[in-house]
Amino acid sequence: MMTGEQYIESIRRMKMHIFCLGEELETAVGHPMLQPALNSVKMTYDLAQDAEYKELMTVVSPLTGKIINRFTNLHQNTDDLINKVKMQRVLGQKTASCFQRCVGMDAMNAVYSTTYDIDQKYGTNYNERFKKFIIRCQEEDLTVDGAMTDPKGDRSLPPHLQADPDLYLRVVDRRADGIIVRGAKVHQTGICNSHEVLVMPTIALGEEDRDYAVSFAVPTDTEGITMIIGRQSCDTRKLEDSCRDAGNCRFGGVEALTIFNDVFVPNERIFMDGETKYAGLLVERFAGYHRQSYGGCKAGVGDVLIGATALAAESNGVAKASHIKDKLIEMIHLNETLYACGIACSCEGHKTPSGIYDIDTLLANVCKQNVTRFPYEIARLSQDIAGGLMVTAPSEKDRTNPETAPFIEKYLAASSSFSTSDRLKILRLIENLTLGSAAVGYLTESMHGAGSPQAQRIMISRQGSLEKKKDFARSILDIN
Amino acid sequence: MMTGEQYIESIRRMKMHIFCLGEELETAVGHPMLQPALNSVKMTYDLAQDAEYKELMTVVSPLTGKIINRFTNLHQNTDDLINKVKMQRVLGQKTASCFQRCVGMDAMNAVYSTTYDIDQKYGTNYNERFKKFIIRCQEEDLTVDGAMTDPKGDRSLPPHLQADPDLYLRVVDRRADGIIVRGAKVHQTGICNSHEVLVMPTIALGEEDRDYAVSFAVPTDTEGITMIIGRQSCDTRKLEDSCRDAGNCRFGGVEALTIFNDVFVPNERIFMDGETKYAGLLVERFAGYHRQSYGGCKAGVGDVLIGATALAAESNGVAKASHIKDKLIEMIHLNETLYACGIACSCEGHKTPSGIYDIDTLLANVCKQNVTRFPYEIARLSQDIAGGLMVTAPSEKDRTNPETAPFIEKYLAASSSFSTSDRLKILRLIENLTLGSAAVGYLTESMHGAGSPQAQRIMISRQGSLEKKKDFARSILDIN
Amino acid sequence: MMTGEQYIESIRRMKMHIFCLGEELETAVGHPMLQPALNSVKMTYDLAQDAEYKELMTVVSPLTGKIINRFTNLHQNTDDLINKVKMQRVLGQKTASCFQRCVGMDAMNAVYSTTYDIDQKYGTNYNERFKKFIIRCQEEDLTVDGAMTDPKGDRSLPPHLQADPDLYLRVVDRRADGIIVRGAKVHQTGICNSHEVLVMPTIALGEEDRDYAVSFAVPTDTEGITMIIGRQSCDTRKLEDSCRDAGNCRFGGVEALTIFNDVFVPNERIFMDGETKYAGLLVERFAGYHRQSYGGCKAGVGDVLIGATALAAESNGVAKASHIKDKLIEMIHLNETLYACGIACSCEGHKTPSGIYDIDTLLANVCKQNVTRFPYEIARLSQDIAGGLMVTAPSEKDRTNPETAPFIEKYLAASSSFSTSDRLKILRLIENLTLGSAAVGYLTESMHGAGSPQAQRIMISRQGSLEKKKDFARSILDIN
Amino acid sequence: MMTGEQYIESIRRMKMHIFCLGEELETAVGHPMLQPALNSVKMTYDLAQDAEYKELMTVVSPLTGKIINRFTNLHQNTDDLINKVKMQRVLGQKTASCFQRCVGMDAMNAVYSTTYDIDQKYGTNYNERFKKFIIRCQEEDLTVDGAMTDPKGDRSLPPHLQADPDLYLRVVDRRADGIIVRGAKVHQTGICNSHEVLVMPTIALGEEDRDYAVSFAVPTDTEGITMIIGRQSCDTRKLEDSCRDAGNCRFGGVEALTIFNDVFVPNERIFMDGETKYAGLLVERFAGYHRQSYGGCKAGVGDVLIGATALAAESNGVAKASHIKDKLIEMIHLNETLYACGIACSCEGHKTPSGIYDIDTLLANVCKQNVTRFPYEIARLSQDIAGGLMVTAPSEKDRTNPETAPFIEKYLAASSSFSTSDRLKILRLIENLTLGSAAVGYLTESMHGAGSPQAQRIMISRQGSLEKKKDFARSILDIN
Repeated sequence: MMTGEQYIESIRRMKMHIFCLGEELETAVGHPMLQPALNSVKMTYDLAQDAEYKELMTVVSPLTGKIINRFTNLHQNTDDLINKVKMQRVLGQKTASCFQRCVGMDAMNAVYSTTYDIDQKYGTNYNERFKKFIIRCQEEDLTVDGAMTDPKGDRSLPPHLQADPDLYLRVVDRRADGIIVRGAKVHQTGICNSHEVLVMPTIALGEEDRDYAVSFAVPTDTEGITMIIGRQSCDTRKLEDSCRDAGNCRFGGVEALTIFNDVFVPNERIFMDGETKYAGLLVERFAGYHRQSYGGCKAGVGDVLIGATALAAESNGVAKASHIKDKLIEMIHLNETLYACGIACSCEGHKTPSGIYDIDTLLANVCKQNVTRFPYEIARLSQDIAGGLMVTAPSEKDRTNPETAPFIEKYLAASSSFSTSDRLKILRLIENLTLGSAAVGYLTESMHGAGSPQAQRIMISRQGSLEKKKDFARSILDIN
Repeated sequence: MMTGEQYIESIRRMKMHIFCLGEELETAVGHPMLQPALNSVKMTYDLAQDAEYKELMTVVSPLTGKIINRFTNLHQNTDDLINKVKMQRVLGQKTASCFQRCVGMDAMNAVYSTTYDIDQKYGTNYNERFKKFIIRCQEEDLTVDGAMTDPKGDRSLPPHLQADPDLYLRVVDRRADGIIVRGAKVHQTGICNSHEVLVMPTIALGEEDRDYAVSFAVPTDTEGITMIIGRQSCDTRKLEDSCRDAGNCRFGGVEALTIFNDVFVPNERIFMDGETKYAGLLVERFAGYHRQSYGGCKAGVGDVLIGATALAAESNGVAKASHIKDKLIEMIHLNETLYACGIACSCEGHKTPSGIYDIDTLLANVCKQNVTRFPYEIARLSQDIAGGLMVTAPSEKDRTNPETAPFIEKYLAASSSFSTSDRLKILRLIENLTLGSAAVGYLTESMHGAGSPQAQRIMISRQGSLEKKKDFARSILDIN
Repeated sequence: MMTGEQYIESIRRMKMHIFCLGEELETAVGHPMLQPALNSVKMTYDLAQDAEYKELMTVVSPLTGKIINRFTNLHQNTDDLINKVKMQRVLGQKTASCFQRCVGMDAMNAVYSTTYDIDQKYGTNYNERFKKFIIRCQEEDLTVDGAMTDPKGDRSLPPHLQADPDLYLRVVDRRADGIIVRGAKVHQTGICNSHEVLVMPTIALGEEDRDYAVSFAVPTDTEGITMIIGRQSCDTRKLEDSCRDAGNCRFGGVEALTIFNDVFVPNERIFMDGETKYAGLLVERFAGYHRQSYGGCKAGVGDVLIGATALAAESNGVAKASHIKDKLIEMIHLNETLYACGIACSCEGHKTPSGIYDIDTLLANVCKQNVTRFPYEIARLSQDIAGGLMVTAPSEKDRTNPETAPFIEKYLAASSSFSTSDRLKILRLIENLTLGSAAVGYLTESMHGAGSPQAQRIMISRQGSLEKKKDFARSILDIN
Repeated sequence: MMTGEQYIESIRRMKMHIFCLGEELETAVGHPMLQPALNSVKMTYDLAQDAEYKELMTVVSPLTGKIINRFTNLHQNTDDLINKVKMQRVLGQKTASCFQRCVGMDAMNAVYSTTYDIDQKYGTNYNERFKKFIIRCQEEDLTVDGAMTDPKGDRSLPPHLQADPDLYLRVVDRRADGIIVRGAKVHQTGICNSHEVLVMPTIALGEEDRDYAVSFAVPTDTEGITMIIGRQSCDTRKLEDSCRDAGNCRFGGVEALTIFNDVFVPNERIFMDGETKYAGLLVERFAGYHRQSYGGCKAGVGDVLIGATALAAESNGVAKASHIKDKLIEMIHLNETLYACGIACSCEGHKTPSGIYDIDTLLANVCKQNVTRFPYEIARLSQDIAGGLMVTAPSEKDRTNPETAPFIEKYLAASSSFSTSDRLKILRLIENLTLGSAAVGYLTESMHGAGSPQAQRIMISRQGSLEKKKDFARSILDIN
């Protein structure tokens, strides 16, 4: 396994094509707006080396018998599924942001079991190829970006009927040694700090969408891949002389619109090519794992926000008011409900034909559906407790400007147990999580990551056993 | 293990003192208002004999090595805790009501581990006594009522300062062969159809409340015990010529104000007497188990209500409207969130010093807190879908009166797939669950059973690790 | 204007055809299950004679210049609309139930302005006829039932395509002196204690539904009209020796399935016959007025429930707990939000071509939409505060049975400021309003009366000016 | 009345002391981060000259008989109160931001009636002085900042017991010609673009807090006043070459920590000095008016957000999905509920002894309490509909960089009715309103402006007539 430092260096060595705020970057490493995203991923390496967290962060690979980072694990049982969620909660607590390495982990597990199923059906050997890829990821301790969401264009039309056929990523050429793909993946979380990108289709596909039924993995600095970094709320505060106004100087997440402009994929890295019938299953499995994930990571970030809010209450001198205590309890309650759903869908997991474990689909969707609601309410309650100063406090530059510093020091003092400086730091963290760059992950990504709320509702409808429920009622009533 | 019929006969043989609607009954058996409550408990016996459910309903006793009904089980691991919740969900689905046998199960587990702890501390032998009691319950397959809630009188005063010292149940005399107790337990679910009553204190106690720190078990027909059946909404519909307007003719729950008027308890049935320090722990453990329980049983009842509501939508001819489908999804979502919490607090259970397993306290309280909310919203959505006819439909007597029957048949016909009779049956079941006698269990008991919402909030506050959460925030901010 | 006693006598003199619990009644007057409904209407007469309320309860008729009960008023300005809501709130406070006289008032206003519009369009003289009817209602101070909701049968089909053409009320014959109508109106609130029934169509109609576009008024004891009283939760408690367990002995509401079996309507009582284009407008106007009404009456009933809940908290001895106080505040807040919406849609009312005032349609629908939600939450909070005893307390018969009375007196004593008897009375009122017969009005009728929630959403969608809102955004963004 | 341009010039002529991002500014005019705030206020001048809005925006002053801008009006009747709310809604629609001129209007009305009351009590002549100030504001069409919120320091202590006595603004010296004041006002909305600042105390005061019971007005460029501009989420996007990523280039709000460092106030500008008993009343009146205000302005901003969200749905090609339409309906419903509360508390207003009209306190607090909730839910629903691209879209610099522009154009195209450029503009506006600088006004200010939610709950508790409600219940139950 790599150390955190080795991870950073390994990323620095890659030659990615990254655009950010109109400029091309040689690397994301060291860029003040992107480095926090690297730091979050780095934490997944650091904790694996940390005695306190090692047991949770690592696991013995059944493929190699070696100790690996859990982020590269194929889940062997429900304990693995549960520990995944616990690990994610810890990382949320440590970074107060999206730490980006889950998408790849979830993609790896989904592709693994699905390639197995495809092979069983069609006699292909995708699973063997994929196992090799996984072993490499485990042995070299790689961070993998899972790439699913296509731009989609006109959502009422299937891929092959789009005005521009590239609005879903597709095979544009097939050669003896591999394929050429073209298209884009939007919202790519953590791609500019990943080693590999593992591409999957984004929806169930019909026979005429054959060229869109493609899954593969390539290094993120492969020729033809271009990343355009998405703007986050308050992103440029990280570029200021002091990053203090950013709220969280050390950690963050990042997303990029990622273009695949005629990218070559060698045969051994192709894990699906034309098996349209399995596109839907792959999407569903990935979505299931990722909806489970949110029961861990968002609860972890929620822990930090709740903690920061409790500190804000103390620094404001109101921590003992009964309504403040009650709101903190409500925040904890909502946060633990998310976690409970994450644990439950893991605990109720089941073995797939491939031997690895999948989560309980219904409960994972219920988990994610709650994730689309409760963080927003937690954030609202946090703003209630934090007070208006969170959005009207002067800038760090004013706080340190000799002309204004004494005024700020004098007038923004509250509880004597907190320096004005610390009080403002706490408020900036709450701003970061409820309005700023981390709100992108804690709120909007909670809404749309792993599928928008309506996607979960469709799954809940399908998995909710309504027919059986009607039978229960009929049985009570003795009707048929 | 007993068959369902044997259970009914065993209750019939007892000589309880029951008052109902102003009259003394010789037995609850056969009384049209109480028989449904017996039927619900009977289901816990019937399913244990049913090939389809046997595995879930029974377990091998580690005390005797024999197969026992899971309702008399001491939980040996987290699988036991999980299976308990699953069993409860099934019974909710089968009875659409409170099946009453959980309180005793939860009390048995709480008393078991607590007597063990007391013995360790004081060298008493309560646990050995209790083990004998448990073995008898297992071998004779008894239904036990767990009795906790005292009337409480003036809630701002401890037991020994009450105007009437009997407002909390207490030891009024100690003899060589046992003790005499006096007091009452309110809201006693299923006591008139239980074989034994297992009494526990209801709050943490101080040293001066020594006489109130008492736990014991006696048969429910012991001299001095009087039960006064509580009224439930629409209870007397079960007394009408046809029970159809009751909504659920076969199953129900029952509660009784239960008086202990100088009841003698022999020494071997005393499991705590004066160990005030352990009263709070016992309450907390019982409450924890019982808050877990609601993640199972209420989800099971919710399944029936959702099913009935879907049938109502069909019988009204509106099942395909998008807003109807969406509301059913929401009901399922909320219901599964309850279940997820029940599973999660089980899955995260831990071993107590006594060797048996306890649930995760924080998550069990989170579970119950959600139970105080979601069934009400599910009921509201059900009423939305069912339509106003649920509360304006004519009585069964009018439906069968030749003068009015043709009008009802003609004008209350809706979907051709449903007879008017069945349509009305479905609506009566929804009325039963949202306003009628089952609403007592599905709504008000969801609110107050196992402790009112504020009790859970206090526990969430205690268990929510707020200090750790503050540390997470401090660590992100580099402050202390 | 009549006194309350005169009203009762006037109803007693009528020869209605009423069925209740399988029996035909000579009159609703004096029947213990129906008398409370008469008492509620009687309150509308009593208060009009009461010095304290006279100003609110009466108004000078612009048709006759005489003082009339406001329930027979045609609204002349927004003050009238506002006073209507205030009057309804007072009556909710005085009766804690549906007082039933609003439907007729709302129907009268809707039919008045619509007959005017029809006459303008077609040269008919419906408005003149209707004015005569109104003058009689005002002068004789009549209670009028507004009858809109047809059984509807298969909701996907228009009236004329139903399997049974009578599933919507229709003209089956036309004679020189009048028409013969057949059909039924469901959920008829307060018809068995009204003098007249004013019938309206229930949906917008197409040209082929000509015979269904009919509006008229006849006395409620007209030959051919049969009323079958709907069952309410806990209805028969009013039949018990003591009505105490009913919770509210004096007041209640009532609904009946009402059959029009070839009823003759003389020409002067026909207010629409075949003008299909105006059916939708009439429905919309009636619904608008009635959605406004709920901002008054439900807030009034809510006031009683909040008051009872505060008394329950006191009698339980917990009124000073901060969480109790906070929940009462929340109940008040929600209740006042309903009232605010009722006032706002009145205040924003506008003059119709007929000269009388209509409410603001958007805000009236917003009002009713909130009514489908907040009373349920208020009821939930009330049950939270009231405690479980509300659904487990012994019957009044047990409370007065000498064998059980001492136990109940002793053990259900709580705050010394309240007798046990009063404590139980308070809890029964809360049961009545949240589960019992008044819950039919306070909850289910809040959901479905004046149209189900989806009906309001459709109106909100239509009236919400989404195009204008898009223009605001376009203007900010300088796009088109 | 001034034109918009004259307003800008009048502000430019003032010599304020403003600090922003660490630098001292000569004026807010022309500063790209502050100019949008000036533009919002300018809209209040522009619309007063606009034929379409003139009637709503202006009123005849009873003091002078001249036409004045409604923002300088003293409310003469409930129509004035209602028109105030309507005007605010229009301005929210026109600016999609806080337009800042309300605080002064609300302060003027509160100070007017309170100075009248003080004079009646103590024989002072504050009201006469204040009338002169108001006439000047009306005649010169001035924008006035209402300054209430002190830093408050240790919230458990009254002003005179604070460690630093200046943590509440106070009189530090009294001279023949006036007073010297010292302290600060936090969260000063729109002060750097106002002509005058009208200072009021921030809480009810005891006798020992005499020096804190002070109200006065001075020009905003008075010697000793320093403003330190508060940071807003995404504020510096307005400083970028293109302001497009800011979402709303033209309008915004602004807040400043404002220091009064020994500021001289001449006698004729002092409106309260030591009348501690009236401090609470003044606060309550101001808060009441300002809680009413939010029923107008936030509904107006909500209109733009709903419109933008509908456009986003269209540009994404999903506007016809039933769940999208339903969410838009919910947004409208919530938004109109806010407006209804604003209208209702105006409609129910009452005359104060001074002759001017005050709002209904209970309903204004209910209005504001809803404002602390619904905009957050509207924002959540907006993010749901808008989709994840709102937080992952590339920057404007990338959109125009020739290397990345073609990719963005190609891959972010969706509905053919919208250009990619416009699609992104719409998303940026939603980001602005739900996470960016306008979210400060639409969300956090909705929470804390005019008092935090708990402040409203205290008022709701006081004004909720709980005793009367208990009487209603007692009357129904015939108990006392």
